[in-house]
Amino acid sequence: MDELKQRIYSRIQSDLSDIESALHENLNPYLDLVSKTAKHILFSGGKRLRPLLMVLCARICGYQQNAVKTSTIFEYLHAATLLHDDLVDDAVVRRGTPVAHSVYGNSTAVLVGDFLLARALSIAAETGRPEVIKVIAGITEDMSQGEIHQLMRKGATDLSETEYLEIISRKTAVLIQGACRVGALLAGAPEDVAASLSEYGLNLGLAFQMADDLLDYTADASVLGKELGADLREGKLTLPVIHTLSKAPGDDAVRMEKIIKNNDFSNQDFETLIDMMNKYGGIRYTTNMASEKIKTAKAALSVFQPSETKLLLTDIADYALNRKF
Amino acid sequence: MDELKQRIYSRIQSDLSDIESALHENLNPYLDLVSKTAKHILFSGGKRLRPLLMVLCARICGYQQNAVKTSTIFEYLHAATLLHDDLVDDAVVRRGTPVAHSVYGNSTAVLVGDFLLARALSIAAETGRPEVIKVIAGITEDMSQGEIHQLMRKGATDLSETEYLEIISRKTAVLIQGACRVGALLAGAPEDVAASLSEYGLNLGLAFQMADDLLDYTADASVLGKELGADLREGKLTLPVIHTLSKAPGDDAVRMEKIIKNNDFSNQDFETLIDMMNKYGGIRYTTNMASEKIKTAKAALSVFQPSETKLLLTDIADYALNRKF
Repeated sequence: MDELKQRIYSRIQSDLSDIESALHENLNPYLDLVSKTAKHILFSGGKRLRPLLMVLCARICGYQQNAVKTSTIFEYLHAATLLHDDLVDDAVVRRGTPVAHSVYGNSTAVLVGDFLLARALSIAAETGRPEVIKVIAGITEDMSQGEIHQLMRKGATDLSETEYLEIISRKTAVLIQGACRVGALLAGAPEDVAASLSEYGLNLGLAFQMADDLLDYTADASVLGKELGADLREGKLTLPVIHTLSKAPGDDAVRMEKIIKNNDFSNQDFETLIDMMNKYGGIRYTTNMASEKIKTAKAALSVFQPSETKLLLTDIADYALNRKF
Repeated sequence: MDELKQRIYSRIQSDLSDIESALHENLNPYLDLVSKTAKHILFSGGKRLRPLLMVLCARICGYQQNAVKTSTIFEYLHAATLLHDDLVDDAVVRRGTPVAHSVYGNSTAVLVGDFLLARALSIAAETGRPEVIKVIAGITEDMSQGEIHQLMRKGATDLSETEYLEIISRKTAVLIQGACRVGALLAGAPEDVAASLSEYGLNLGLAFQMADDLLDYTADASVLGKELGADLREGKLTLPVIHTLSKAPGDDAVRMEKIIKNNDFSNQDFETLIDMMNKYGGIRYTTNMASEKIKTAKAALSVFQPSETKLLLTDIADYALNRKF
């Protein structure tokens, strides 16, 4: 596990450092408050998965120019949605740090989110490629609707697996998919290659979100940077819970629903939930589905000849499954 | 006055009806809640000034194709910022109707604002013209920063005229300017013509905001659709107040500041403010400056031969000065 992590990091250090610089250089706010708020969310330990994937996907398609500036689009977009989502979810802590809206106020969080979205689009426009801009705009539509969908179904214990998949696809996977697709478009790859990288990104994104959702029930809180069970306290039912509810017999299902509907449940209640998720297979089912998605993601890379970059994309897929990247 | 209004309306009816249909057709949400919230803000009596200007500017540059779909960009963008700004300003009523966030909740207002922004950008991307998309993305950056700037200086009685102009330029004028510029770009107009229409739009936008700011002190509340003095109660100092403060002698200035800093001022206090704005010329100064901007806007149209469309653009400029369009 740690070996895999090390193998990945040793090969992405130079890219990560380029991305980090580009994120600073391209922010360009004219107000100090915008800069401070944006940096609060941008430079608080994000792993740069999305820009990194874009750079690697451009590279595997033979792109020779520098893709780093374009890759910042995906981190700015991601940061914009985090600012708005934390506000919508009434979150308190992200990555062990108080959320931006609690430090700078709700209004600033809304408007700096808008600014980051606009920066992402300005940089997209600079590519001069309408097809790239279409992908970015489409992602933004999807993400806002995915978040609204989640919001509308907050606390609903009848959320289905299909609906869950639709939500996480829009909320999380389309951005990762888009990063991979834009990498291919930038390199001028043929459509079948772009489609393969889209497939890789979509499945990686779905698995990534499932792994994240699992962490809420299986992680070490100090490593996670927030308390366990936070999703459920916010009324977010994720696959481990959804599947368990569908498999638990009547009285256990009722017991679970009772706990879920009380969003101030005790630690003991939470233990009970975890026990049921293990007993009725919610954890295992989610792990298996994430694992299947990763297999699909890796299979989509079969169009490429073996290379350093292909190995890296494969390793990243394996790693995404095992822990929060 | 009413004659001018009638002359304008009789000539724009067909365009307005096309714009209205296009605003319905291009919204394309997959969630009912998104549709409802977006329609709450989109179809509540907006006058469609921005899309109309885009259509007219394309037409005056000889554009033969249908510009209506592209023009929706500017109403969607406008609606997106209204949703977020009403939230940021803690507004209660807009155009005589409860604001969207009070009906659908803050979270929905944030996310539907994001969706409308994204729709605007998707439609921009469909034009296939990166220069159009650059204008749109730039406008979005400016608007978010203009609003943050205003927020940062909320309640500040030392706000200068220069700062006020910078704020209204970003908050309001750049969008109207952008609508005019994009009309020209769409028509493939040469840069000097596009620059003239930009100049027209910028100055019209500035005058439009000044006229709007004046209404807060001079309008009939039932016509305005909200109570007078609302800007000041929100801590927004606008030109009539800024100029009056700069001209009032010491004790009157202190008296004014005292009223302004109490955002729950009485009707009598408000009367006192109005008296001072008349006495020290704040109303007159703002009216004059708006009038100058309209002159500049109309002068910018001198590059065009006389035509129906030119007359209409001139009439719209005159009308913007006289009342809320």
